[in-house]
Amino acid sequence: MSKPLSFEKPLGMRDYLPDLLAKQRDIEYRVNQCMMRWGYQEILTPTLEYYETVGEASATLDNRLFKLLDRQGRTLVMRPDVTTPIARVVSSLLKDEPRPLRLMYNTSVFRAQHHEAGRNAEFTQSGVELIGDETIDADAEVIALASEALRAAGLEKFKIVVGHVGFIEGLLEETVPKEEDRVRLKERLHQFDYVGFREDVDNLPIAATEKERLIGLLKLRGGINRLADAEALTVNGRAREAVRNLQQLWLALEAYEVTEYIMFDLNLLSSLDYYTGILFEGYAKDQGWPVCGGGRYDQLISRFGVDNPSTGFAIKMDRLIEASPLQPQSTERKMYIIYDQQTRAQAIRKARELRGEAIVIMGTVPPSAPVDGLIDLRGGGVDA
Amino acid sequence: MSKPLSFEKPLGMRDYLPDLLAKQRDIEYRVNQCMMRWGYQEILTPTLEYYETVGEASATLDNRLFKLLDRQGRTLVMRPDVTTPIARVVSSLLKDEPRPLRLMYNTSVFRAQHHEAGRNAEFTQSGVELIGDETIDADAEVIALASEALRAAGLEKFKIVVGHVGFIEGLLEETVPKEEDRVRLKERLHQFDYVGFREDVDNLPIAATEKERLIGLLKLRGGINRLADAEALTVNGRAREAVRNLQQLWLALEAYEVTEYIMFDLNLLSSLDYYTGILFEGYAKDQGWPVCGGGRYDQLISRFGVDNPSTGFAIKMDRLIEASPLQPQSTERKMYIIYDQQTRAQAIRKARELRGEAIVIMGTVPPSAPVDGLIDLRGGGVDA
Repeated sequence: MSKPLSFEKPLGMRDYLPDLLAKQRDIEYRVNQCMMRWGYQEILTPTLEYYETVGEASATLDNRLFKLLDRQGRTLVMRPDVTTPIARVVSSLLKDEPRPLRLMYNTSVFRAQHHEAGRNAEFTQSGVELIGDETIDADAEVIALASEALRAAGLEKFKIVVGHVGFIEGLLEETVPKEEDRVRLKERLHQFDYVGFREDVDNLPIAATEKERLIGLLKLRGGINRLADAEALTVNGRAREAVRNLQQLWLALEAYEVTEYIMFDLNLLSSLDYYTGILFEGYAKDQGWPVCGGGRYDQLISRFGVDNPSTGFAIKMDRLIEASPLQPQSTERKMYIIYDQQTRAQAIRKARELRGEAIVIMGTVPPSAPVDGLIDLRGGGVDA
Repeated sequence: MSKPLSFEKPLGMRDYLPDLLAKQRDIEYRVNQCMMRWGYQEILTPTLEYYETVGEASATLDNRLFKLLDRQGRTLVMRPDVTTPIARVVSSLLKDEPRPLRLMYNTSVFRAQHHEAGRNAEFTQSGVELIGDETIDADAEVIALASEALRAAGLEKFKIVVGHVGFIEGLLEETVPKEEDRVRLKERLHQFDYVGFREDVDNLPIAATEKERLIGLLKLRGGINRLADAEALTVNGRAREAVRNLQQLWLALEAYEVTEYIMFDLNLLSSLDYYTGILFEGYAKDQGWPVCGGGRYDQLISRFGVDNPSTGFAIKMDRLIEASPLQPQSTERKMYIIYDQQTRAQAIRKARELRGEAIVIMGTVPPSAPVDGLIDLRGGGVDA
């Protein structure tokens, strides 16, 4: 034979062994059951898409995309997110289905990692898209469903942090004349670089009162009372409208009885630039990275030609599994049957009989691990 | 916004809409439950592997591999099969686990298509690997499990066609002196080109009796009686040993009570060149392509440095779904609740209550499709 092969895997790629995978499958099942009970139907799009179709629209940084060339020389990408492929499907195959559409998915997404010991380059996302519904009730539904999904996965203490793209955009439009300055300030917020944000604001050629309003933005994190502060901070239509949106959202979330999980953060910006309104991130206790994220994207689907105001969220399953205290259910009994050639037929019959209610493993030698149930049929056979 | 994007997908890539996907999930669940009841534990390997590690060992034609380059200039491949990555894992992470190991998987594999309207380039495989067991009983177990999995997926009339790599190899070694002639004859068999096989045999510089023996190979298809014919056709150790293997296999399959599904085909060769012994393919009624395939591969894992005689099979889920008469279970009731702003809290409570036993969809306008259950809470609310 040829020389032994290596065991290496590409950067950010991972093997899931049975114990961990059993936990993942259990949590996926709970989360997906929850989504289905709310009327969401599962859809699956391919792993490979055209770069010019889905890759560019996906709002994933170009150097994070896995790209390859097909035989015709067109660039393909491995699915960097799921919302954009679903936008493609609802604009084509599902174009004539009545709205709103409720779709869910549970699939791998791919984002290239460039450092050793970095994050996963392939990970499972479970999420929903509520397509063709522009109401605040739709935003409330997906946030309430996100809370229920996290609870179904065994999380108890978690927070869903809610913001609004329109508030930041509106406040910046009111106070900062230059587009490039606004872009830089948003970049600071997105990177949680509040020191840099303050410095940048200090250096702006605007009135001191305007600077104070911008710095005031940083304090808009907390409970429902922050919305009143936010309202006081702004005068124009867009930012005001955003606050009013959030107030209505709060009332709907009260009806869902999930406000204990909600906090507001008017600084919140997503790395996904297709969000246009309310957006949110869910944090498990003691985790620095969001376990889920979502929001309203009213213009993404219209890039495929049809207007469809929509909202949704995605759960990052590897983070949820890490945060969840659940242990894989092992309620099923595991039985071992040992036999010899004389008792093989008897052993097979016994196994068939027991497999209705147990896991049954057959062998000609005893298992090496301690076992719950062992039936030894060697040497003529004695039933357990 | 920018110009509308196209809806195109790369060659062989496919969207799975809810109805078809529900059928797929249902069948996956049945098949996987079956594998788990037999003691197989699920494992998941990454979508991307190094070409030099898994790509080359996978026995997939190079022009069918999806390849890409990482930043270090190393070639990656999208998983073209699952057995080879599992061979990598059992030789590294699972090196010290006691044998036999019983592993199962349910995942996508990728094989590039070069023609429009060709076959799927991405498809789901569900399969098992029984690792570190060289007995005929292990071969019998996986064949019996394959039959049970096909039955669990709703197939009634199917055939599992069983052959043995050692028989063909042995007979050719006895009769055809030149390696290149043997390779060409095997290629004919693999492509079911029996006319070409006969012509090639005719042109060989060997005795007429030897030619007759080779042509006799083509008749070795059918029930258990073909094994006696096969035995009569061969004299050497390897081919004889293969027949004896198959006779023992038959006895074990009788004990499993699955012989009604079995037929022998001593011509059978797989496109996967890592098989070393018994191999098989499952055919659903009226389908020209196998719905599953498997066999013994005693040397693949040793390419990663550790000797592990093994056997297993993989089901091609798209073919199984096409062949299966099962319809997705829709035993769950679907309810719609329509509400207005006055009755929202009441509607949400009602939905929560009903979701224990039904799918509940909430809306502010009536659904456009005919529905089983509709609760209209608008205008003060009247409970159904």
